Amino acid sequence: MDSLTDVLDGRWASLRRDIRAQVADEKFRDPVGLGVEEHRAQVLEQLHELAATGRPRLGFPEASGGNGDIGGSIISFELLGLGDLSLMVKAGVQWGLFGGAVELLGTREHHERYLRAIMDLELPGCFAMTESGHGSDVQHLRTTATYDPATREFVVSTPDVAARKDYIGNAARDGRLAVVFAQLVTAGERRGVHAFLVPIRDESGAPMPGVRIEDCGPKAGLNGVDNGRLRFDEVRIPRTALLNRYGDVAEDGTYASPIESDGRRFFTMLGTLVRGRVSVAGSAGSATKRALTIAVRYGERRRQFHRPGERDEVVVLDYLAHQRKLLPALATTYALHFAQEELVATLDELQSGTGEVDEVRQRELESRAAGLKAVTTWHATSTIQAAREACGGAGYLAENILPGLKADTDVFTTFEGDNTVLMQLVAKGLLTSYKDHFEDLSPLATARFVAEQFMGAVIERTAARKVVERIIDAGPGRDDDDALFDRAWQCKLFEDREEHVLDGVARRLRQATPENAFDLFNASQDHVLRAGRVHVDRLVLEAFVAAVDRCEDGETKDLLNRLCDLYALANIEADRAWFLEHGRLTSARSKAVVAAVNELCAELRPHARKLVDAFAVPEQFLAAPIIAD
Amino acid sequence: MDSLTDVLDGRWASLRRDIRAQVADEKFRDPVGLGVEEHRAQVLEQLHELAATGRPRLGFPEASGGNGDIGGSIISFELLGLGDLSLMVKAGVQWGLFGGAVELLGTREHHERYLRAIMDLELPGCFAMTESGHGSDVQHLRTTATYDPATREFVVSTPDVAARKDYIGNAARDGRLAVVFAQLVTAGERRGVHAFLVPIRDESGAPMPGVRIEDCGPKAGLNGVDNGRLRFDEVRIPRTALLNRYGDVAEDGTYASPIESDGRRFFTMLGTLVRGRVSVAGSAGSATKRALTIAVRYGERRRQFHRPGERDEVVVLDYLAHQRKLLPALATTYALHFAQEELVATLDELQSGTGEVDEVRQRELESRAAGLKAVTTWHATSTIQAAREACGGAGYLAENILPGLKADTDVFTTFEGDNTVLMQLVAKGLLTSYKDHFEDLSPLATARFVAEQFMGAVIERTAARKVVERIIDAGPGRDDDDALFDRAWQCKLFEDREEHVLDGVARRLRQATPENAFDLFNASQDHVLRAGRVHVDRLVLEAFVAAVDRCEDGETKDLLNRLCDLYALANIEADRAWFLEHGRLTSARSKAVVAAVNELCAELRPHARKLVDAFAVPEQFLAAPIIAD
Repeated sequence: MDSLTDVLDGRWASLRRDIRAQVADEKFRDPVGLGVEEHRAQVLEQLHELAATGRPRLGFPEASGGNGDIGGSIISFELLGLGDLSLMVKAGVQWGLFGGAVELLGTREHHERYLRAIMDLELPGCFAMTESGHGSDVQHLRTTATYDPATREFVVSTPDVAARKDYIGNAARDGRLAVVFAQLVTAGERRGVHAFLVPIRDESGAPMPGVRIEDCGPKAGLNGVDNGRLRFDEVRIPRTALLNRYGDVAEDGTYASPIESDGRRFFTMLGTLVRGRVSVAGSAGSATKRALTIAVRYGERRRQFHRPGERDEVVVLDYLAHQRKLLPALATTYALHFAQEELVATLDELQSGTGEVDEVRQRELESRAAGLKAVTTWHATSTIQAAREACGGAGYLAENILPGLKADTDVFTTFEGDNTVLMQLVAKGLLTSYKDHFEDLSPLATARFVAEQFMGAVIERTAARKVVERIIDAGPGRDDDDALFDRAWQCKLFEDREEHVLDGVARRLRQATPENAFDLFNASQDHVLRAGRVHVDRLVLEAFVAAVDRCEDGETKDLLNRLCDLYALANIEADRAWFLEHGRLTSARSKAVVAAVNELCAELRPHARKLVDAFAVPEQFLAAPIIAD
Repeated sequence: MDSLTDVLDGRWASLRRDIRAQVADEKFRDPVGLGVEEHRAQVLEQLHELAATGRPRLGFPEASGGNGDIGGSIISFELLGLGDLSLMVKAGVQWGLFGGAVELLGTREHHERYLRAIMDLELPGCFAMTESGHGSDVQHLRTTATYDPATREFVVSTPDVAARKDYIGNAARDGRLAVVFAQLVTAGERRGVHAFLVPIRDESGAPMPGVRIEDCGPKAGLNGVDNGRLRFDEVRIPRTALLNRYGDVAEDGTYASPIESDGRRFFTMLGTLVRGRVSVAGSAGSATKRALTIAVRYGERRRQFHRPGERDEVVVLDYLAHQRKLLPALATTYALHFAQEELVATLDELQSGTGEVDEVRQRELESRAAGLKAVTTWHATSTIQAAREACGGAGYLAENILPGLKADTDVFTTFEGDNTVLMQLVAKGLLTSYKDHFEDLSPLATARFVAEQFMGAVIERTAARKVVERIIDAGPGRDDDDALFDRAWQCKLFEDREEHVLDGVARRLRQATPENAFDLFNASQDHVLRAGRVHVDRLVLEAFVAAVDRCEDGETKDLLNRLCDLYALANIEADRAWFLEHGRLTSARSKAVVAAVNELCAELRPHARKLVDAFAVPEQFLAAPIIAD
């Protein structure tokens, strides 16, 4: 078991062990039986405990008193996902979004003035981007910040209710300073969305003049997070409250920016905030691991119906239907874990460097983060649901943890980018080969760009890719029934699917004219989303393959190889209609895939417990009576 | 719009209108912002309001003061599903399960003594079947009721914690009398599971001596229902407390029953309780309609991203991806509604009659109820999830209703029979042509029976079937691309799939020997479940076809025809791998199915609002701020 955990823990093994030990402390307990206000209070207290560990410093640069370990900071958010997800989200708001925006969009003066207080939680803050009327299309936010050269201030305004800031974490109760995204207006000209520091409460907790704060009220889950709404009635802030790394206003009102296009500037700003999405994917993975650990442990002890001639009833995990509910999901959870690990390593490499970041690589990273966030959070929703059903009525009792996990993770498919929108972003990146700015998400722009420039699918330079190429090159290219278990065959099938789907989408979009672009794009939307999806699926398989390749312990490697087979074949099975339609699988081979998934379930069944125990979820977070000894 | 509502309301239109008007009263409001105890109190008060309307009398025979309208009583449970589902469940426990068991398993003395007080809610009660250790395999419950001829009493005992009654509605707070299912033991012999009336609380609400009651505590949802656990420490009840319609014990302890086999007797008893499953399916349908009404109304007003050259942003329901999330689910909701209506009519016909019920028809009914319950509740879970995601972050706020709907309906796939187990029951009925008793669910018995007697798929005699046969006979049998929209082609495809899957399963199970039966059955479990599923899918399509056929208004009929196409083609699309594998669809035809679903989404989009408004959900239950004017 240690060996499996070692493989999962990978590069940040020692940090992972430390954080697991830390969150195993009773202080980080679940909010059992707490009302909304008590839950909020407990989470705030826990947040202070976290601050006291110094862990939040990981993500901030050394120059500002941080540790400069970007990867480690993402890992620490991931592991917070093993416990109360309200704490993970509140930590994410404070240090990831709010602190991250001050660091990445601000300049030295902001860093010096605020970062230490943010890290230590002396200054709780908000990240006020979403508005009631604009969630996905944030380029068109309607809050304004108008420069008044007479007083050298910006005047922040909410023109109407659709422009109020909504669902803002830390806003309803604790936040004192907010990073507010608003249309910058100076000298009568709009310059696009910028970020401003706006105090929303004084030290006593009272709202600042001109700031109206509402509580979003009870939510499906995450009730330990105080989401709120903010409205600004001509709130004046100093000129220096503009986070001015990508655009600044001189005292006389002159605007200057290193990036000319408003859209491009805004998406560059957004791009720097990619860590949020990566962290959400990581913690969604952790919650999934927790749910699977509970369901597998229960499935190993719950008995129902007699097997003829035996005294004891059958353990439910011995039933094929039960294995089908949990084991392919378990394999996918491993696959996504390795893909996430690779993504974090890439992010760490790009953002820890001091030099200029290659723009194409930065866009690849953003696209991969978007895609993996969507796939991982959808997987969390469906797997936690399956785990609940696999635990029957017991799974419906709050004491058995799954209801809370379901409720808390439900919004993950929506926040930090709606999954459907994110998947389009992935497809757009592929179609434009990451060469164009992401600035304009309009169908017309995409379609036109594709018509002009699409060059065919691009295989990204991930670390895993080299391993996969070696395996494909060495593969026997067999075509018999054993081919199903041939890694080279599986990889080629995923790769071929991606290329074919992407080529098909590009061909369709090349028909675009200014008149038909929207309708054409819309009619192709399912095709576009599919292109994003199969791309991510390939990256995930390749990450899994590379992780198995790295593993040195023979027995562990064998087990991971089988699990990788299950991931690959369950993915192919779910999509076999496409492979059949496109002549990639014969009928016989397609049926063989279904049979192979069943066989793999039977083969992996005896290892199910070991596979979930390797996640090493602290027992405090598994204190469900249904699995208590 | 009225006309669509009329078609949906069908035979019980006037009753439906009455109940909708009744539950639109503020008394039946949602439990906004209530804690568990307040919620329970509100639901109990609402339950008394329901009792005062006399509506619960619908389901009881006239001889006992009821109205003898079985169908009407099911419809009234269905419509309660439009509001707070805790009330629906509590009503179902009191009048459906508890009252139903007294009526259907008891005899005149029980009826005269209890039914009036049950109908009027003077006597709140429980249906205590499930035990911690036995949820699905209720034939092996372990509570005992041992007859003591010396005192002419039964002694009811809970041997250990696994045998405690668990998840029992009405037990934690309000129930005074419980129908307890226990192994009857008399004269040293076990006679299988029977039902006994056991008082659990006195008039003051204190537990009766020897009865230990625990609260199950907070649940994911349905917190207005007081689920509890019951343990019996040698509790003595009179001999006449046995509900003795199917088995009785004389004063001297002699056992007598009209049904010899213990298993068969028990499943006959269970069979009479089929109304519970039918009611769950009905109310799951209502909750789904409510969720879709909210999501479609929101989708029609929410705008995001600009269409080039237009001032207003695009309404999100105009996006194909959004239509794909909601419209096939809407079509399926209609289809399931009509299948449910047909099931209720059949149930009404069988249970309202005074003569002997044909045993095969009774088993067909039980099987259909099981299958439709499973399919409808799975559909509810996935559709309400899709509705939540389609409403984005707003869908996550409690005030917008969807979180409560999600949480409350989540257990529907589990209670009144775990869906996976129910689907096996459906398959078993098909495999045995309903000729064998359902008594023994063991794989060995099923496999042996199939080996001996399976004769090929049987098409049941539903009312819809005649219509479908007429349409198939009149069909042109075309094979061109328009065939996709040819009803006869669709019906034949569903029928052919069912026959083929069932034949395949039967062939596999015929290999059974006493030694391999369990493993063989288990290895075929996904195949068995599939047989149940495609059978239900055919019945659902046929019910939709027959409903369209009944419709007389031309415009309404056209609309329903398109919706029926969408149901059929979305079902085929989701399962097109199977059709391809088995040579039922060519690659080209299969791709055409996908394209046709997209086209139908576009075509039905303008009618989406009308289609949900036809559900006529009372506005009180649609009071979500996101769709408020």
